Amino acid sequence: MGMIGGGKNAFIGAIHRCAALMDNQIELVCGCFSSTPERSLESGRSYFVPDHRIYKNFEEMIEQESKLSEGERMDFVTIVTPNHLHYNPAMLALAHGFDVVLDKPMTYSLEQAYKLRDKVEETGRTLLLTHVYSAYPAIKEMRNKIRNGEIGKVRKIYVEYPQGWLSERIELQKGNNAGWRTDPKRSGKAGCIGDIGTHAWHLSEYVTGAKVTELCAELNTFVSGRPIDDDGAAFLHYDNGAKGVLMATQVAQGEENSLRIRVYGEKAGLEWRQQEPNTLCWKDQQEPIKLLRVGNGYMSDIAKWNTRTPGGHPEGFIEAFANLYRNFALTVRARAKGEQPTAEMLDFPTVYDGVRGLQFIETMVKSGYNDEVKWIKWVE
Amino acid sequence: MGMIGGGKNAFIGAIHRCAALMDNQIELVCGCFSSTPERSLESGRSYFVPDHRIYKNFEEMIEQESKLSEGERMDFVTIVTPNHLHYNPAMLALAHGFDVVLDKPMTYSLEQAYKLRDKVEETGRTLLLTHVYSAYPAIKEMRNKIRNGEIGKVRKIYVEYPQGWLSERIELQKGNNAGWRTDPKRSGKAGCIGDIGTHAWHLSEYVTGAKVTELCAELNTFVSGRPIDDDGAAFLHYDNGAKGVLMATQVAQGEENSLRIRVYGEKAGLEWRQQEPNTLCWKDQQEPIKLLRVGNGYMSDIAKWNTRTPGGHPEGFIEAFANLYRNFALTVRARAKGEQPTAEMLDFPTVYDGVRGLQFIETMVKSGYNDEVKWIKWVE
Amino acid sequence: MGMIGGGKNAFIGAIHRCAALMDNQIELVCGCFSSTPERSLESGRSYFVPDHRIYKNFEEMIEQESKLSEGERMDFVTIVTPNHLHYNPAMLALAHGFDVVLDKPMTYSLEQAYKLRDKVEETGRTLLLTHVYSAYPAIKEMRNKIRNGEIGKVRKIYVEYPQGWLSERIELQKGNNAGWRTDPKRSGKAGCIGDIGTHAWHLSEYVTGAKVTELCAELNTFVSGRPIDDDGAAFLHYDNGAKGVLMATQVAQGEENSLRIRVYGEKAGLEWRQQEPNTLCWKDQQEPIKLLRVGNGYMSDIAKWNTRTPGGHPEGFIEAFANLYRNFALTVRARAKGEQPTAEMLDFPTVYDGVRGLQFIETMVKSGYNDEVKWIKWVE
Amino acid sequence: MGMIGGGKNAFIGAIHRCAALMDNQIELVCGCFSSTPERSLESGRSYFVPDHRIYKNFEEMIEQESKLSEGERMDFVTIVTPNHLHYNPAMLALAHGFDVVLDKPMTYSLEQAYKLRDKVEETGRTLLLTHVYSAYPAIKEMRNKIRNGEIGKVRKIYVEYPQGWLSERIELQKGNNAGWRTDPKRSGKAGCIGDIGTHAWHLSEYVTGAKVTELCAELNTFVSGRPIDDDGAAFLHYDNGAKGVLMATQVAQGEENSLRIRVYGEKAGLEWRQQEPNTLCWKDQQEPIKLLRVGNGYMSDIAKWNTRTPGGHPEGFIEAFANLYRNFALTVRARAKGEQPTAEMLDFPTVYDGVRGLQFIETMVKSGYNDEVKWIKWVE
Repeated sequence: MGMIGGGKNAFIGAIHRCAALMDNQIELVCGCFSSTPERSLESGRSYFVPDHRIYKNFEEMIEQESKLSEGERMDFVTIVTPNHLHYNPAMLALAHGFDVVLDKPMTYSLEQAYKLRDKVEETGRTLLLTHVYSAYPAIKEMRNKIRNGEIGKVRKIYVEYPQGWLSERIELQKGNNAGWRTDPKRSGKAGCIGDIGTHAWHLSEYVTGAKVTELCAELNTFVSGRPIDDDGAAFLHYDNGAKGVLMATQVAQGEENSLRIRVYGEKAGLEWRQQEPNTLCWKDQQEPIKLLRVGNGYMSDIAKWNTRTPGGHPEGFIEAFANLYRNFALTVRARAKGEQPTAEMLDFPTVYDGVRGLQFIETMVKSGYNDEVKWIKWVE
Repeated sequence: MGMIGGGKNAFIGAIHRCAALMDNQIELVCGCFSSTPERSLESGRSYFVPDHRIYKNFEEMIEQESKLSEGERMDFVTIVTPNHLHYNPAMLALAHGFDVVLDKPMTYSLEQAYKLRDKVEETGRTLLLTHVYSAYPAIKEMRNKIRNGEIGKVRKIYVEYPQGWLSERIELQKGNNAGWRTDPKRSGKAGCIGDIGTHAWHLSEYVTGAKVTELCAELNTFVSGRPIDDDGAAFLHYDNGAKGVLMATQVAQGEENSLRIRVYGEKAGLEWRQQEPNTLCWKDQQEPIKLLRVGNGYMSDIAKWNTRTPGGHPEGFIEAFANLYRNFALTVRARAKGEQPTAEMLDFPTVYDGVRGLQFIETMVKSGYNDEVKWIKWVE
Repeated sequence: MGMIGGGKNAFIGAIHRCAALMDNQIELVCGCFSSTPERSLESGRSYFVPDHRIYKNFEEMIEQESKLSEGERMDFVTIVTPNHLHYNPAMLALAHGFDVVLDKPMTYSLEQAYKLRDKVEETGRTLLLTHVYSAYPAIKEMRNKIRNGEIGKVRKIYVEYPQGWLSERIELQKGNNAGWRTDPKRSGKAGCIGDIGTHAWHLSEYVTGAKVTELCAELNTFVSGRPIDDDGAAFLHYDNGAKGVLMATQVAQGEENSLRIRVYGEKAGLEWRQQEPNTLCWKDQQEPIKLLRVGNGYMSDIAKWNTRTPGGHPEGFIEAFANLYRNFALTVRARAKGEQPTAEMLDFPTVYDGVRGLQFIETMVKSGYNDEVKWIKWVE
Repeated sequence: MGMIGGGKNAFIGAIHRCAALMDNQIELVCGCFSSTPERSLESGRSYFVPDHRIYKNFEEMIEQESKLSEGERMDFVTIVTPNHLHYNPAMLALAHGFDVVLDKPMTYSLEQAYKLRDKVEETGRTLLLTHVYSAYPAIKEMRNKIRNGEIGKVRKIYVEYPQGWLSERIELQKGNNAGWRTDPKRSGKAGCIGDIGTHAWHLSEYVTGAKVTELCAELNTFVSGRPIDDDGAAFLHYDNGAKGVLMATQVAQGEENSLRIRVYGEKAGLEWRQQEPNTLCWKDQQEPIKLLRVGNGYMSDIAKWNTRTPGGHPEGFIEAFANLYRNFALTVRARAKGEQPTAEMLDFPTVYDGVRGLQFIETMVKSGYNDEVKWIKWVE
């Protein structure tokens, strides 16, 4: 693995490294970790990367690495830069035959997303988009139960992601990640909706297998002076007839990452919360509430495949991330050997999720910023 | 107290009796408890009401009671019949000089609500509308903190009321309360939105002191054959600039009465859940989460006024109801003596809440059942 | 109902009144509410008791009431005074043919308990001992499941009752209930163990149907200057082979009334917490955790008999108390008519629970205050 | 890192590998992973260890590795075998100059523990004992607050560890970890008390800084035919005057790893639960309950040092384990450079915790298996 971005103190880069390494499937072999060569070098050394594989910029890295022998060169690139810096390195990496890991939203614009999709199809490479919440074992269980029809036809989906960290205009201070997230030049058309709304939307499609076909949104900016949304909500219509309500906010004082999804079908309902991720709650009218706990024998095979510890030894955010990396690594390795990856290996978000994510942003912005017409067909 | 409706097996009548009696302020002295005289008699006897004060119908009851001497006759009427049977007995009782307790929604139609309001104003009587959730002590605390500005200017309100009991078409069976609630001829224009959506909306206005000025709703009917909404959601704009999301559903399999409200201000957020009603949760970015527990010394005077037990001895739904009845009884008694009731006594929903409730239903239906125009000004 | 004690500001007297009245089975007709006639009169008036039935002392009350006609006089006496003032009024009331309601521990000493038991047997009257926690509907369900053998042979019982209100020596201040509870002349041989340890012990026997045969205890006094235990724990052996651990403390800073019981059998475990009393938790190795919620159709008949509200409308401490009063009232009424009360009516703690409670205190004190020999056979 | 034990399907070996690798401080370079060379080879290959460094047995591994050059050979040995197989490889590794990581209990017997301690002192090597629960960030916070005197003088400690997996005699089946744990020839003198009782005891000493001086225990065997305890409890006296109650059981049907510790001081109480490890609960009589959440700015430096994710992105069991490995690795690296490790680095359990752990087992067994005398001084 080579890493672009993720210098010291960058939160998400550190998570990516832990997650990639923990299953002993991946090593960090090179990187350009910062916009300045000095910082990149300092960071790379602290990650035990040899000096000659700490690069000045991503172009140099991709060029140089592609010249190394197959066993020696990096196998794939992880890009953990702000949104507006995803596209160029991803395109270049694909062009040089490298697989790619990207954070969401996949690109700065929908147009870039389409081009990236085309490049992936053209090169036949593998792209992992790190919608991490879809990789929790309890979410696998939830999806499995819904797919099996255990809750019956899906009627209602509630998905919400409240955060509080942008309750004040902290982007004016240094030393936090708020700057680029609240700057349309770097984050793209949406703020809150792009940053966490996409996670909520994606999770709803992932667990139900349904696709949003139209929506009605309201986007708000509560913090004065901020040039982009810091809050939003939407009514959603899905292609299976389900109706949804999505809420995402970054001004809910005191909320951390309180992502929560509830899906109610004709027979039963399921609920999951990211902050207590090892429990999946089943509810129906006839029987006691059931709490399915990760790590127990009664869980499905797909949940077990994404679980490392026995019941009661909590797994968390990094393990979910690690599930993405491990599945991706196994897929890449199988493909390198000319083998067909199993369904379990292939269970990670790809470039197509990325394209839909940008479409979601586009549709939300079109609906939520426009006072006249509210119900908008999904933008393609 | 005289009771109209509330025969044996009627859930809400039993709650009203427990709540009215428990504080030793009110006695049940007469009633017409059922549509048939036999059942009324049977019910009344089981409530220890003497035979001669168990009436055949409400007209007889109001007539006869009004002829009794002041100390002897009932002081007020509690009406616990289906929605379409609120208006007539309430009007008649007011006309005969009795105070009135009514369940929500106050009347079958907005037109009736206006007339009832006019009658209350004309007669100078007291009307209690039993929006019971507003009477929990932790809700008093929540309201007090918001009013005092402790959470700062309110930005976002999330209020939700999921139930599951109408997930199937149980109104076709006998022996439950679903029949009139899903029949527009008896419930009024809205089903779920009238039954529990009104509670959610009212609570949001009660705790914040703000009023909804416009909304954008979607009302759904998920259960096939049902002639009225069993689900709905709305975006709300309040007169203080706050934005809200309201969700109410009766098809969320396995949900009981999971009413929950969250209010986020510029400085902090507050959260309360009806199913764990003795805890109020305070959140902000700087400090640990705080759980305020009813019955402790640090609670406000208004919360204490509505609390009977020390911390850790849970109070529940009936105590909340009893708070309404006790405040109402104290108000009625003070007025009878020509005294001005205190602010604490007067803290219960009145005919004006009832009028706004019907306006809410009217506005929701106008917005949520209409596919063209979505944002609707509050109907007056 | 006549009441002895329970003047204004007395917490537990107010609870008793609410609980007795709420089901419309009982009226408060007379009382001597305080040690001074003036205060008794003031309190009685505020409870709407007519002046001539507000008595100076319990002797006068019992004498006078016994002279009234059957329909007019009180049917039973509720005694809500400190422990050392239970015995005399109870004996006198029984002697005059009144049934009796007593708070726990039943008497000041074991000797008194035996005499009271003999008096009850001699007079054939009914005595209710208000071990209120045994009257929660979820506890009824727990007991029912254990009795039915659903969890298999019971192995382990954990019962704990942590409170924090005596963390400081507040008995030196006025205006709280700590004074007599920490004074061996008024509370009896034990402090914490008598006040709340008895509740914990009783609950363990009630839900399992087993009896403690021997125990090993440690009693502590943490607050300097306090002449009695404010903390304790015990290992318990039950007659069905189960082993228990009991913990009770009044110096656990910040704890309210955090009573909790867990019972593990060969097949499953059950857990209940007083502060969230409407949920019973079922656990076994093979299946998801199950949360049984009071008010649902799947609950047992005995749980339903003790439930007033539908699922999700929480019941609390006062409703549990009311279950005791209602069952007692129905029993007394049936016996007055010469009928045999049903098993459901008879489901309340009696004088025999009271005797065992004093034996428990005696055994705990003998074991826990003695450094030499620890395992003590149950004192009889 | 070289690993002894931890072949495929061995739960705890996999956890050790994830934890060691995730912070990019440690690589797995060699190992003997199983008792048979074939399985060891198969396991090692799946871990990407080159064939020539997959050894037949630990003697060969330590011999061969010690002959490699400093940069090439393993830096330390991780021993994840059953208890009776800890001592020999640990002694040999120390003798050859390798640092050692050991699971608890450290050795099979107290005698071995003393010898191992002497060997560590003699060789000057570093030994990490993986009492993993002490490495959770919320536990660091708890310890920090107690050490700073924030809760005042400690009065009462409740620590409990209920599990249910040994509720039946599953050790008679294959394919689980119950076999050696319930066999006194492999586990040592105690079963449940050695396996999880030690964790509970250790945590109580770790967070309070106090040492147990005497105890009174009861050890039970509930599952018929099992030759060792599967349940136990103890009263504990600590050298700071605190009193404790410890409970550990492996027959609590349906319990996973429900470790929980509560410490009450004169001013406040603190509570932590392993199954929701990112919350530390603070309670006192004067103020609302406070929930301190890992990853927030208000946490102490030592908690932050042991945290990887921002608030609301849960960390779990593997991250706690990784904290141990990282601190150990930093300590070993500092010492290798002749530097003094910082206090933060040195914050992990060592051979002295291991010795006390065996003393704890010895004392518990002496007290809990002996019906005569119960209070036992700590065995040294």
